[in-house]
Formats: sequence, C-alpha cells, structure tokens
Amino acid sequence: MTEMKVRVFVMLKTGVLDPQGEAVRHALGALGFDGVQGVRQGKVIELELADGTSESVVTEMCEKLLANTVIESYRFEVL
Amino acid sequence: MTEMKVRVFVMLKTGVLDPQGEAVRHALGALGFDGVQGVRQGKVIELELADGTSESVVTEMCEKLLANTVIESYRFEVL
Repeated sequence: MTEMKVRVFVMLKTGVLDPQGEAVRHALGALGFDGVQGVRQGKVIELELADGTSESVVTEMCEKLLANTVIESYRFEVL
Repeated sequence: MTEMKVRVFVMLKTGVLDPQGEAVRHALGALGFDGVQGVRQGKVIELELADGTSESVVTEMCEKLLANTVIESYRFEVL
C-alpha cells in the first residue's frame, strides 16, 4: 500500500504562557548567546497515512487528538 | 532593534524508539482512524533573534542546547 506523509505543527496560541520556551530562552542566555528575544516551543508530528487520506480527516485528527484547540493552534502540510 | 525569526525542527533519528509517537499512533487507532502506519513526534522551536545573527550561531545553539545530537537530528529555517 502506498502512503502519504503529513507534517502537523502544534504551537501554543499567542498569549498562552510557554514555560518550556522560557526555559530555553534562559538557558541560551546562560550559555552566552545574546540577543535572544523570545522563544516558543511547539510540537511537530509526522504522520504516515494511507494514500488518499483527505485533508478533512487530518483536520479531524488534529481537532480530536493532536492539538488542544483551547490553548493550541495547529497547521499541517502534506508532503 | 529589528529581529529575525528562526524555526528549528528537532526529530528523533531514524531507528531511535519514539514512545510519544507510538502513543499517538495507538490513540489515533483507538479513535477509529484507520491506516495510520507510523507517527514520529518532534519539537519545533521558534527563536526571535537579533537581526543579523549568523547561521553558524544558530547551529551552535542547536548543537549545544536544542538538540541532543546523539539521538536527535535538527534542521532550521530562517523566516
């Protein structure tokens, strides 16, 4: 069976506190990297799906499981 | 001060067990999504850096902090 690859990006929405991103920002400063003004951390999820899976199915996967749409936004690209 | 945005992707290397990805794969199956053949989960880190930061500095950030190069690969794009 052939397959298609989809890459989903999940990020915290603007305004939602991102402690992981903040930790990275502090750590970069502590390592001597100057000028780091902001860091946001999110997830990438690479899916191998059956060929022909429609984008609406991927949207459903995002809405039901991959992203918490109250605090996270998502987007995906078919590779 | 103007700034530049860099997006870093960190994924587990092929062959390294990815329990988070496996958990997502099982959960998608349990939700009734068929044909999910593989899932890999990684990180996206969006950096706001001082304008003119060179790519070699970003590489250094990745090597020293953002990726564990023993088990993870990374790539980045300047936005």
